[in-house]
Amino acid sequence: MMERMQKVGTTRTVSTVRDTGGVVTSQVRRTVLPGGLRVVTEQMAGARSATIGVWVDVGSRDETPSLHGASHFLEHLLFKGTHERSALDISVALDAVGGEFNAFTAKEYTCFHARVLDEDLPLAVDVLGDMVTSSLITAEDVEAEREVILDEIAMHDDDPDDVVHNLFAEQAWGATSPLGRSIAGTEESITGLDRARILRFYRKHYRPEHMVVSVAGSLDHATVVRQVRKAFGRRDFLSGEQTPVGPRRTSRRVRVHPGQVEATRPFEQVNVVLGMESYPRDDDRRFALGVLNTALGGGTSSRLFQEIRERRGLAYSVYSFTSHHADAGVVGVSVGCLPSKLDEVLATVRLELARVAADGITDDELVRGKGQLRGGLVLGLEDSASRMIRLGKAELVHDELLEIDEVMAKIDAVTLEEVRTIAADVFARPEILAIVGPA
Amino acid sequence: MMERMQKVGTTRTVSTVRDTGGVVTSQVRRTVLPGGLRVVTEQMAGARSATIGVWVDVGSRDETPSLHGASHFLEHLLFKGTHERSALDISVALDAVGGEFNAFTAKEYTCFHARVLDEDLPLAVDVLGDMVTSSLITAEDVEAEREVILDEIAMHDDDPDDVVHNLFAEQAWGATSPLGRSIAGTEESITGLDRARILRFYRKHYRPEHMVVSVAGSLDHATVVRQVRKAFGRRDFLSGEQTPVGPRRTSRRVRVHPGQVEATRPFEQVNVVLGMESYPRDDDRRFALGVLNTALGGGTSSRLFQEIRERRGLAYSVYSFTSHHADAGVVGVSVGCLPSKLDEVLATVRLELARVAADGITDDELVRGKGQLRGGLVLGLEDSASRMIRLGKAELVHDELLEIDEVMAKIDAVTLEEVRTIAADVFARPEILAIVGPA
Repeated sequence: MMERMQKVGTTRTVSTVRDTGGVVTSQVRRTVLPGGLRVVTEQMAGARSATIGVWVDVGSRDETPSLHGASHFLEHLLFKGTHERSALDISVALDAVGGEFNAFTAKEYTCFHARVLDEDLPLAVDVLGDMVTSSLITAEDVEAEREVILDEIAMHDDDPDDVVHNLFAEQAWGATSPLGRSIAGTEESITGLDRARILRFYRKHYRPEHMVVSVAGSLDHATVVRQVRKAFGRRDFLSGEQTPVGPRRTSRRVRVHPGQVEATRPFEQVNVVLGMESYPRDDDRRFALGVLNTALGGGTSSRLFQEIRERRGLAYSVYSFTSHHADAGVVGVSVGCLPSKLDEVLATVRLELARVAADGITDDELVRGKGQLRGGLVLGLEDSASRMIRLGKAELVHDELLEIDEVMAKIDAVTLEEVRTIAADVFARPEILAIVGPA
Repeated sequence: MMERMQKVGTTRTVSTVRDTGGVVTSQVRRTVLPGGLRVVTEQMAGARSATIGVWVDVGSRDETPSLHGASHFLEHLLFKGTHERSALDISVALDAVGGEFNAFTAKEYTCFHARVLDEDLPLAVDVLGDMVTSSLITAEDVEAEREVILDEIAMHDDDPDDVVHNLFAEQAWGATSPLGRSIAGTEESITGLDRARILRFYRKHYRPEHMVVSVAGSLDHATVVRQVRKAFGRRDFLSGEQTPVGPRRTSRRVRVHPGQVEATRPFEQVNVVLGMESYPRDDDRRFALGVLNTALGGGTSSRLFQEIRERRGLAYSVYSFTSHHADAGVVGVSVGCLPSKLDEVLATVRLELARVAADGITDDELVRGKGQLRGGLVLGLEDSASRMIRLGKAELVHDELLEIDEVMAKIDAVTLEEVRTIAADVFARPEILAIVGPA
């Protein structure tokens, strides 16, 4: 359990894991810097590289309609230059050491990240700190990047999977709600954004108390903290009396809008997403829902894969997914198929959902689903990027950092009865259905 | 250097790497089993997982026109069941332990692979050995999987990137040459394949002397060899006097066909691939070509990214690539843009290619390009999947396994003059140009 009330300037050891011989294989430590900036690191024995993420508590759901796409636009603009570095300088710094360097924007957060050899970590900290605290956001850069983003939107419009998932979100959350809008914005909204509004958005949201630096790999916590303090200390960024802002809370539960929506596109395949409302991110039922999702459509042994692909040959790609926000969630099934198979695909998906809603899953499926989740979790731990993401999300969007053993125990504790109850609850709810394909 | 002439039944240590304290951090060992099956492993200190690949020396370039798509069809069919296991049994085995389990087909090889916790490696070896040696390939499975593949082809047809790269290959190598055809086949060729022909193809190509098992991670070589001998010993597969077949050689150099080809598709973006003939896979110039490719379009600091995206805002995605086969290779630039920008994109790409052909690259770019290749190489070594692929490809398609230090030395040895010579040679050659987009 992560303790939120930690004094500024102090460091706390969150967890220590030892191997059977007593040697420390992983240690998580957390420091709160002035201004409320949190630094969380995980030292991994045997690693030679490190992955750093700078997480900002802002995403597309924080945008008013006229700011639609601003979080993502800003993510692009931060690569364009600071008082000290041009766009080329930023690119050169990490390219020259072979680092992987990128960023992504989601509905509830933005993350800038780099994976580098441990000796290059100070460089990565410095570049990221410079970008986040000292971006210039010139009018010229806004104009050039606007064109790039309009092209990126066109690219998403050519991707059937992006189109159908955006349409599904629009139906589920409502076209006028921030959760229902696409992250990248529309041609109209991007054309309408100007430098002044983006700059205001930047100054409002890129604040130390809304930010987390998470680093995992070959590192020393105190050294990383010193580097972060220097890199993020530019332009008095780490000043003030703020304490870290906790996970996002909204006063009222977001409602899902069941219903069917279709879009005609000149694709060869029809792409379908069919889903129902499920639970918010920190709901205790998420572990049982994870086992259910795995049994239903989480691997090649799952019911949907076996029935739709193996037995009936209806589709190449079929899977189920869960998606969680602070105050709402959905569970769904995604399939792409030839237009001639659409009716049979829909009938088969509905039959499988009805079966699982009526009877739950079998004992074998429960055991297998738990094994699959446990194995995937342990395999992911070898990778410093996965660990960086685990730390960053725990700080930013969860109430706590569950230790691996705790997560394992929660998975192990899931019962057939819990899964049955959840399946009967969720899959009996009204459908949200999005279909994209030729007329 | 890997010694090809190794006696069947013997084991050889190919390389041993120690850290500064003298502790072995990696060891590569190779055993040739009866029938000519090669087992190459790399033991990685500190790993908890292992990745196994079963490589078969067959791909789409081994197909006659009427067999077009057979290698990939066969890859699918091997998951459908053996004398001992149904399709569901195969899926269940690796899903239950959380393993990542998949396969891919290329023009010159097919690979089945799994990443698992070390304790589950015996299971992965057994399942893969069973699939590869004892597939049933029933008529029913052929029919069901045919539908799945037709859907997969439709999915590729909806992916602008796949469409433009397939079109580029068709122009470069010729629509009637095996290298110029798509890996998955066409609706017509897939419809025309029957069980008897696929079964003959399977029996002809899935032979021990054409196969390599490569494994990297937490493992013991002798134990892996014993497991492979048992799993692949089914149905007398490991019998006979064959010795391993060396890398693919062709008697005559494949010719590239310059020229322009366009396809009209109702996409929002125009996708372009512009390239030239370069060098075959084992050509000594590949290291200098790698540095050149990096400087030209290998990262965000590259000339193409800086000029096309950062300075002119013409496109979201732009990069250069090299592609090598046994006897031929190409180098090219890939861009997606809005139709209104196409002329400027093409003019800018051609200008950058002409500049680099005339003047080579700068000293800074040379240093940076080497750093980027070196860093990427070292970062990749933490990952058992990357190491498994390195071992498998070295055995199957290269003449030798270069040790990491040797690769580093080859990169370090690249001179400005070599890069200049290669740029002047390659980028002065006639264009191969593929364009896909709206009318």
